[in-house]
Amino acid sequence: MKITRVTVTPIAFKDAPLLNAAGIHEPYALRSIIEIETDSGHIGLGESYGDAPALAVLDAVKRELIGLDPFHLNRLREIVRGVVARMSPASAARAELAPGSHASKAVSNAYSAFEVACLDAQARYLNVPLVDLLGGAVRKEVPFSAYLFFKYTEHIDSPYAPDTWGEAISEAQIVEQARRMINDYGFESIKLKAGALEPEHEVACIKALKRAFPGAPLRIDPNGNWSLDTALRMAELLGNDLQYYEDPTPGLEGMAELHRRTGMPLATNMVVTDFDEFRRSVALNSVQIVLADHHYWGGLRDTQQLARMCDTFGIGVSMHSNSHLGISLMAMTHVAASVENLSYACDTHYPWQEPDEEVVKGGKLPIRGGCVQLSDAPGLGLEIDRDQLGKLHELYQTCGIRQRDDVGQMRKYRPDWRNVKPRY
Amino acid sequence: MKITRVTVTPIAFKDAPLLNAAGIHEPYALRSIIEIETDSGHIGLGESYGDAPALAVLDAVKRELIGLDPFHLNRLREIVRGVVARMSPASAARAELAPGSHASKAVSNAYSAFEVACLDAQARYLNVPLVDLLGGAVRKEVPFSAYLFFKYTEHIDSPYAPDTWGEAISEAQIVEQARRMINDYGFESIKLKAGALEPEHEVACIKALKRAFPGAPLRIDPNGNWSLDTALRMAELLGNDLQYYEDPTPGLEGMAELHRRTGMPLATNMVVTDFDEFRRSVALNSVQIVLADHHYWGGLRDTQQLARMCDTFGIGVSMHSNSHLGISLMAMTHVAASVENLSYACDTHYPWQEPDEEVVKGGKLPIRGGCVQLSDAPGLGLEIDRDQLGKLHELYQTCGIRQRDDVGQMRKYRPDWRNVKPRY
Ligand SMILES: [Mg+2]
Ligand SMILES: [Mg+2]
Repeated sequence: MKITRVTVTPIAFKDAPLLNAAGIHEPYALRSIIEIETDSGHIGLGESYGDAPALAVLDAVKRELIGLDPFHLNRLREIVRGVVARMSPASAARAELAPGSHASKAVSNAYSAFEVACLDAQARYLNVPLVDLLGGAVRKEVPFSAYLFFKYTEHIDSPYAPDTWGEAISEAQIVEQARRMINDYGFESIKLKAGALEPEHEVACIKALKRAFPGAPLRIDPNGNWSLDTALRMAELLGNDLQYYEDPTPGLEGMAELHRRTGMPLATNMVVTDFDEFRRSVALNSVQIVLADHHYWGGLRDTQQLARMCDTFGIGVSMHSNSHLGISLMAMTHVAASVENLSYACDTHYPWQEPDEEVVKGGKLPIRGGCVQLSDAPGLGLEIDRDQLGKLHELYQTCGIRQRDDVGQMRKYRPDWRNVKPRY
Repeated sequence: MKITRVTVTPIAFKDAPLLNAAGIHEPYALRSIIEIETDSGHIGLGESYGDAPALAVLDAVKRELIGLDPFHLNRLREIVRGVVARMSPASAARAELAPGSHASKAVSNAYSAFEVACLDAQARYLNVPLVDLLGGAVRKEVPFSAYLFFKYTEHIDSPYAPDTWGEAISEAQIVEQARRMINDYGFESIKLKAGALEPEHEVACIKALKRAFPGAPLRIDPNGNWSLDTALRMAELLGNDLQYYEDPTPGLEGMAELHRRTGMPLATNMVVTDFDEFRRSVALNSVQIVLADHHYWGGLRDTQQLARMCDTFGIGVSMHSNSHLGISLMAMTHVAASVENLSYACDTHYPWQEPDEEVVKGGKLPIRGGCVQLSDAPGLGLEIDRDQLGKLHELYQTCGIRQRDDVGQMRKYRPDWRNVKPRY
């Protein structure tokens, strides 16, 4: 089997005015949809970052993939390495794609994008679900968590009609957001994206969630926006309310110190984002849970390797997400289904995406009982809806965003907003 | 694809009177040949231990594999775990299979045996070489090392005509053994199995090899049979003669102390034999090179995971072997071909096996230029020679050995021989 065609289509879709440590989401999120075709008539799908530096790498790689056997993933990695090495350091340095990923991740980011597409093609060629290439499913459904955000009612300058979620700033509004998300999707765990407002208020929201959903595992994620002192003070207020404390404070050393002084289980998608950081974290005992993300860890097989490493070193495993569509959701689901030691419900932004903005046939994938079900369909089990892909590609062309900038977006609301971390 | 038939055939083949830390090889080595067949008409081959406790597990597992999809390796692992858990603790406790493997390895040993056969079947189903299921070959040939042993001319009681290698006790004889092995196979690295004679003599043999083959990387492997003091004393004598110092002294702590005091790169197949020992070794900095062995590390995919872990923690990778035939050699070759960070030529006992005692069609696999070549044939590229398999199975039935016992064998030569370690 040989690759005969590779398409990378940048897309944009509406994104809610969600607050975070950096600032606020812009009106549109960017992604890229990867399609490969083989001489055997099989296709393979992938979804990755859509920022300009990521697209530059994906576009440069794609030209070198013609003729590659989708099974030859080691060769794919070599090709990606070669392309990234030849690209100018300047363009690599701009490749700040998303929290938890930076320039040094250019190789694993691009490799990941195509690895998923290659595995999808392999599985379709074999007429088996993709998870079978990962050893088969140890679970038939993968649990996700309710991912709550502080948010404004609508974006500044009203680029489109407000979303249906309304404002979420107060405790009551956050509880209401959780209630709707749980009603609609059946989530059993709840995560609050924090680092956006006063820490005491954010902790008060966790307390309110605890009262409203007493049995639900809770997490708070300030994205490293709290100083060690603040993180310690909040830890005291939080007591035993949390399932885990996600990236409260920056750096491997800060997290290690926080764990030493509180004993709380710390999770991360910021201080352990590659295998070298994993090694350093083990030495320092910085984190107790790693939130894997196949988009920057090097694809589905490397995510399995990460999970095995976590198992070896007594570290829990869950999954991180950025704004994404169904191909990413299903790729996460297949790898999560293969990982025996997946210890926690995974993160997903998927409920935040609009029902009419999905590029796969049949529209948005269902989340029921908090879980995404695996199907027996070949590969990821997804087909591209070309009209939808065209529509979202057009949105990419007209939306004016080429690189995510939550700081700049917040300056439209607050001109004095600065990119400082930790802010509190 | 479903498994419709599983065969586990115990075999015996002649083994030379090779000396080691425990005692001496018996006249016959035991292995098992695993064959699976699928409803699609494909077969898959594996080779594993042939000792009674290993066979008991393999036989118990094989009955539960009918109907299993060979792609469902996670399910295979679950089945093996279930079988081992149900077997009596007594039988598990007797499962001392080989250096570096013990009762706790029953699951990974049995899983490994069938995993290779399943991957072979997968690859034949796909009509691709097995290595393609491991990401494809990063090298087309895999280097092995000359594996030297001190040995007697023939076995006690002369069970069959002496082998053609003659006695190897003196420096000159060891150099002669190396010369023949290098002439016949083109090996570039040399390993001396030690821990058998006086340490000073064994080190003198390394010095003789150094003089005779000045460019060849050298290793000595006393199998943990030297006390820390002896290992330190020999380290001083060895100076910079070695590529690495393999298991000179027992235990993770002993190895760590030795490394601390000498700075020499230490390799092991004894103190790091599973992922938990890997973790402890990282904490202690016990070893700098892990000799992988898919037969007890959990198959080819887990060997890849081990290699990734080694890469992460800055540890070198090579491969360990026991007495084995061609199926094991080819499985080692496929996984080694897929591992980018394979840092050293692998061990193999293969040259010690007789030319007419191979169970694959075409007889013994060639080693040229010190390397085994990958072919483009589907799977492992091997077919069973049924006459040969029958012959070696008959030898198993008549040879009288059911569990390897190098200590007991040595007592036939020296009735006062004791099982002590470290002996020196
Ligand atoms: Mg996070
Ligand atoms: Mg050894």
